[in-house]
Amino acid sequence: MTHSLLATLAARLGPAHVLTDETDLAPHLAETRGLYHGRALAVVRPRDTAEVAFVVRACASAQVPVVAHGGNTGLVGGGVPFGGVVISLTRLDRVRAVDPLDATITVEAGCVLATVQQAADAAGMLFPLSLASEGSCRIGGNLATNAGGTAVLAYGNARELTLGLEVVLADGQVWNGLRALRKDNSGYDLKNLFIGSEGTLGIITAAVLRLHPKPVSKATAFLGLASARAALDAFGRLRDGLGPRLTAFEYVPRFPLEVVLRHLPGAVRPLVGDHAAYALVEISSPAPDAGGELEAQLAELIEAGLAEDAVLAQSEAQGSALWRLRESLSEMQGYEGGSIKHDVSVPVSRVAEFLERATAACEAALPGVRVCAFGHFGDGNIHFNLTQPVGAEKAAFLAEWPHFNRIVHDIVHAMDGSIAAEHGVGLIKRDELPRYKDPVALDLMRRLKGALDPKGILNPGKVLAPAGEGPEALPVAQAVRPYPAARSDTAA
Amino acid sequence: MTHSLLATLAARLGPAHVLTDETDLAPHLAETRGLYHGRALAVVRPRDTAEVAFVVRACASAQVPVVAHGGNTGLVGGGVPFGGVVISLTRLDRVRAVDPLDATITVEAGCVLATVQQAADAAGMLFPLSLASEGSCRIGGNLATNAGGTAVLAYGNARELTLGLEVVLADGQVWNGLRALRKDNSGYDLKNLFIGSEGTLGIITAAVLRLHPKPVSKATAFLGLASARAALDAFGRLRDGLGPRLTAFEYVPRFPLEVVLRHLPGAVRPLVGDHAAYALVEISSPAPDAGGELEAQLAELIEAGLAEDAVLAQSEAQGSALWRLRESLSEMQGYEGGSIKHDVSVPVSRVAEFLERATAACEAALPGVRVCAFGHFGDGNIHFNLTQPVGAEKAAFLAEWPHFNRIVHDIVHAMDGSIAAEHGVGLIKRDELPRYKDPVALDLMRRLKGALDPKGILNPGKVLAPAGEGPEALPVAQAVRPYPAARSDTAA
Repeated sequence: MTHSLLATLAARLGPAHVLTDETDLAPHLAETRGLYHGRALAVVRPRDTAEVAFVVRACASAQVPVVAHGGNTGLVGGGVPFGGVVISLTRLDRVRAVDPLDATITVEAGCVLATVQQAADAAGMLFPLSLASEGSCRIGGNLATNAGGTAVLAYGNARELTLGLEVVLADGQVWNGLRALRKDNSGYDLKNLFIGSEGTLGIITAAVLRLHPKPVSKATAFLGLASARAALDAFGRLRDGLGPRLTAFEYVPRFPLEVVLRHLPGAVRPLVGDHAAYALVEISSPAPDAGGELEAQLAELIEAGLAEDAVLAQSEAQGSALWRLRESLSEMQGYEGGSIKHDVSVPVSRVAEFLERATAACEAALPGVRVCAFGHFGDGNIHFNLTQPVGAEKAAFLAEWPHFNRIVHDIVHAMDGSIAAEHGVGLIKRDELPRYKDPVALDLMRRLKGALDPKGILNPGKVLAPAGEGPEALPVAQAVRPYPAARSDTAA
Repeated sequence: MTHSLLATLAARLGPAHVLTDETDLAPHLAETRGLYHGRALAVVRPRDTAEVAFVVRACASAQVPVVAHGGNTGLVGGGVPFGGVVISLTRLDRVRAVDPLDATITVEAGCVLATVQQAADAAGMLFPLSLASEGSCRIGGNLATNAGGTAVLAYGNARELTLGLEVVLADGQVWNGLRALRKDNSGYDLKNLFIGSEGTLGIITAAVLRLHPKPVSKATAFLGLASARAALDAFGRLRDGLGPRLTAFEYVPRFPLEVVLRHLPGAVRPLVGDHAAYALVEISSPAPDAGGELEAQLAELIEAGLAEDAVLAQSEAQGSALWRLRESLSEMQGYEGGSIKHDVSVPVSRVAEFLERATAACEAALPGVRVCAFGHFGDGNIHFNLTQPVGAEKAAFLAEWPHFNRIVHDIVHAMDGSIAAEHGVGLIKRDELPRYKDPVALDLMRRLKGALDPKGILNPGKVLAPAGEGPEALPVAQAVRPYPAARSDTAA
């Protein structure tokens, strides 16, 4: 049966694109954080949408599950296969069209995010989606997970940057929704159902994405702040004063900054004095003087007592150095020992309160734990990470992960927040979801899954537990073993 | 059976809120354009979400359809009941919360759009959704139809302004999705499924909406242009130069401008000379000098030969007078006789080509027909209206509506456009949809309808034909009678 399926696939795709050797499978069975290890019958590499559809149709007939892979850079185990066929989309890597007047780019799912950014740039436009793994993640995966990143404040998540999609459905039919329209009310919104569904409702094979005018000038500053509350006030003031020109407000408390200064080669302390918290602020302007504009705003913040100190990058190199501090945080954290990570969001107005409450609760639960919480403050999205106490045993610390999940997620939930802000649910949060999600919403999700993938072929066991399984049944028992060495982890 | 249902509803809502008198029903059976006339068992007026849920549950048990009504200002017959119970949401009219720091407002579905705008304004923020009927349409209807309007260019449609929803489902369950989060990837995107579903998948009872910083200054100008192509070039230049500060680019060719100058009391010709086309341009700035900025842009346009002439409003009153010309277009068109209307969109880059092709085709089909096409050029959304030839018989002209649908919609379709850009599908375009929509998309829509409303209780016969009916079976035969006198029509 399996043999016959693989022969069918090889006949269509060519034997070179139906991989079954252990070494070929290996990179598709591991995932970024090393939390899970999967298994698969084969990895197939279709070259176009028609071949993807062929593979899905064949697998559906044989009742064999399929898992779509782009760059396999996800952080929630959403791409780990547990049997079935992995469909690698890396050969669907064409930029089909760029239209600067229309401000759109049409790309295939396997395009690397950086390639999309570069194609937009070459056409004089901006594709703003930007995240740590942009050199290796693929746009199909960005859309399947509704990726966030550092430019959400002004430009939105991947969802807000998408005008149209092409999707292979669970039965192998192709939905051609590749529209480049700003207004289209001709029926239900199918596009947004597939975006963020993590490959469980359909496989995105191409997309029409929105471009934005390229800013004429940008400016970057680093602020020293008295507290998270001060950061919130400073953020509100900047947003109201700058509108959509405020393109980043990233929060970095004292501890993560000290960690990155300690471990990152060549890192330079951006401000002379010591502050409880810091913010990386970026503005983008269609006029040439973003620097002057930001300088005026910073002077006002200091005069109003909302910032203690600030430095404005005087060159592109200085701006990049400030961004490098921010972008290295997650990796540098690994040098301090074990990390327990939470990707959460609350309403922006409550982000300071969240930081206070969650920090106090974690410090009370484990004296000496070092809260290493940073992130997309202006989106209410905090990477609420915990670094092990100095001298603690790493494995013992990591074994407390479920305990800290409960502490942090309970607080997030009580504040009307989300326990899965920008990385998705995948496997790692699947069994947390029923605890916090409105049961009516979960029921709706199950009905949608049933309507679009009645045989349960698409990425089974992700986001929702398979029908019939209890909420605690993860696909493999050893999946819950704690987080291993994290030096290669580049979670945002 | 019916009697028993109405008694059940009266016992819960109070007899004063279960209306069955003909005069009470009348406003709920008519629709804006007079194209359809419905019938209903009763109009009920629940006071809160729990009462809406009670009504839906009771009706579902009795297999009686429900149609939700807000301001009943829709333009596609989406609110016309054909039997069943009309649920008027006008008593759900509380602004539940406004949070300027969070930049959100939480409102009930029955809030008049202007009330939402005013509540935001009172809190120092902007709720940008703006359309001709804003004094009487209700926000629940705006969301159910994913309303567009004049501020989409910078701020998006109703969809892009919505963070969270509360929805009563087909079985009377309430989904509480009232989240105020900028990032939330905790499962499938339910919100966008209900937005734009025209009451056929659920009844929106409340929403968390996004606010924006209020601009510090605005400026309005009126441009004289050589052609639609010149308008497109001018638009591209302004968008690239102004980015999100370009908040409107409305297109008005010579004929509609002459119509409005002829009929609108007090209208003043904005430019001395005669031009083939005109554009109303608005910019909004977080800085105080929007006027100076726009003036500089206009000078560049003229120097580059993209605009023939331009006038900059020197006061708020002058700006309002320019906007009044644009907003009166649809109404004034009625004074020239019968109007055949199309609400369509194409990719922005093709909007000039669309105008040329559709104009030529309509003029060839009926010599003397006066194309009165105007609208949201920057969104690719044109109200491609046709005014009867001078001296023609109105009824005979209007009888040609289906013929012109075919001409205009075929061109839209060939250009990858939408035959339902901002007003929705409702009844008026329901049977056009199967002709132009990807059959895979239609099949997905039917599966979603089946999953969320298996009994077909919610606004049956809208958007999709009821199961078992052929695509040509409208609920009442006389529904297809042509458009009557249009003087009260204020379609955007």
